[in-house]
Amino acid sequence: MNNLAYYNGTYMPKSEVKISPDDRGFLFGDGVYEVIICYHGLPFYFEEHLKRLEYSLKEARINFYRSHEILDIISVLLRMNGLDNSDSTAYIQITRGVCERKHHFPDNTVTPTVYITVNPFYLNPSYITDGIKTATIQDVRWNRCDIKSVNLLANVLAQQEAFDKGANEGIFVKNGIITEGTHTSVFGIRKGVVFTHPAGNQILPSITRLIIFDLCIKLNIPIFEIPIKIEEISTFDELFLAGTTREITPVVQLDEYIIGKGTPGPITQILYNAFQNLVNEKKLLFI
Amino acid sequence: MNNLAYYNGTYMPKSEVKISPDDRGFLFGDGVYEVIICYHGLPFYFEEHLKRLEYSLKEARINFYRSHEILDIISVLLRMNGLDNSDSTAYIQITRGVCERKHHFPDNTVTPTVYITVNPFYLNPSYITDGIKTATIQDVRWNRCDIKSVNLLANVLAQQEAFDKGANEGIFVKNGIITEGTHTSVFGIRKGVVFTHPAGNQILPSITRLIIFDLCIKLNIPIFEIPIKIEEISTFDELFLAGTTREITPVVQLDEYIIGKGTPGPITQILYNAFQNLVNEKKLLFI
Repeated sequence: MNNLAYYNGTYMPKSEVKISPDDRGFLFGDGVYEVIICYHGLPFYFEEHLKRLEYSLKEARINFYRSHEILDIISVLLRMNGLDNSDSTAYIQITRGVCERKHHFPDNTVTPTVYITVNPFYLNPSYITDGIKTATIQDVRWNRCDIKSVNLLANVLAQQEAFDKGANEGIFVKNGIITEGTHTSVFGIRKGVVFTHPAGNQILPSITRLIIFDLCIKLNIPIFEIPIKIEEISTFDELFLAGTTREITPVVQLDEYIIGKGTPGPITQILYNAFQNLVNEKKLLFI
Repeated sequence: MNNLAYYNGTYMPKSEVKISPDDRGFLFGDGVYEVIICYHGLPFYFEEHLKRLEYSLKEARINFYRSHEILDIISVLLRMNGLDNSDSTAYIQITRGVCERKHHFPDNTVTPTVYITVNPFYLNPSYITDGIKTATIQDVRWNRCDIKSVNLLANVLAQQEAFDKGANEGIFVKNGIITEGTHTSVFGIRKGVVFTHPAGNQILPSITRLIIFDLCIKLNIPIFEIPIKIEEISTFDELFLAGTTREITPVVQLDEYIIGKGTPGPITQILYNAFQNLVNEKKLLFI
């Protein structure tokens, strides 16, 4: 079945979406995006994703005033694509619009390009049961990683480098400190305490990270925004990645170093189960 | 007249070029580009631009084996667009191709997207005669500025910030040091000596920068790859920007600081004239 997408006000087969070569998304990566998971047809933590999208738009200075329409568009796309009763992801990309190439912003007559699609979601269950291998990658990204922009060449190169090393994901290291994964947040656990990089312009404010903070508080698991030094990695008992399409994925290896016993650790599993309970609670509301 | 462009093997009106929303250029800014000036229909320093393009492709790990075709494509486009006897710029963008969204590289069946256009070149003569105002902008870009990629959001935001400050271009400052302009190289002159940021991963290896080194040697003007500290800016007598579409543009103001006498300086003018002689020599070959 041809995937039906939303493009600038119209629902159409994705194959018919025609991006202009003058779209600033194509010429400059001048756009922002979001990926929202829809469990059983319900966008999960939608308000938080919308808030983050609006933050990215504000920081990238893209004037887009129709973000209130996004939820309805996703709902329509899920229905049109027969995904309203299963798990899927919604992808939303907003660029500064179409204009003859020049670095500075176009005038006010240029309206942003809006492109939204939905796709079936699948997470390999062995990643959760067995954990994954990761590889450290030098973090050469810009200093505004808090903006979820489509300037993702560094992430692309890092993810490929990780794959080339036989790892499932790359973990960025900057000045000896773990910042985040190539498309996830990174958490370490030492003596029952959870550590992760502080929010700020070096990492993306992950929605799953937010959920993990809530879960830790609820479960009485101490959690601190203290960065993990790569030289201290051997002192950590557990490591996991968190993100919209990763959920909570245990890490059992970083480069040559085996984390803990080389199997998913107990606190990671507690958090994973609590996360799944949260997902199931939300699903139940709609069954 | 509708601009005729080259897109993936075909010459067509630019308005008919249809970029897929799955193009990695659109989704990730996963592509590189070049801008080549064609004086009197002749691509200027074409081999150097081609070499830089191939460097960018190599560093971005994009497998593109048809760069030897680019000169012919530009020649055809210049003729088709009636620009073969005037000054124009050729824009070349190569992305990693079209593939369902995932961070790591697509398989080998995916071929790069190639998009090339030509456009009339115009440089406001008052910029050369009067000089321009510039503004310092914090350099938050990634640490691979030597790759001419389309991940240009930082440059877009910087150029707009400069415009908002009433300046014509932004000058990036990182850790108190001038790296380069938002789309140019920066040169300062103190007591007859030319200074510019060393090559490396903090700046783009500008072709005009290369030409300036050659001209300085020819003209016995000392030139050093020594970075300019922003706190020492008052000790500089002249400042200029260099780039393909800027040629050699004098800077008469940086933020509130007036450079030299507030008019284009003598060494900048000597270099500008030498540059124009070089352009005219190349033009003469084809008249």
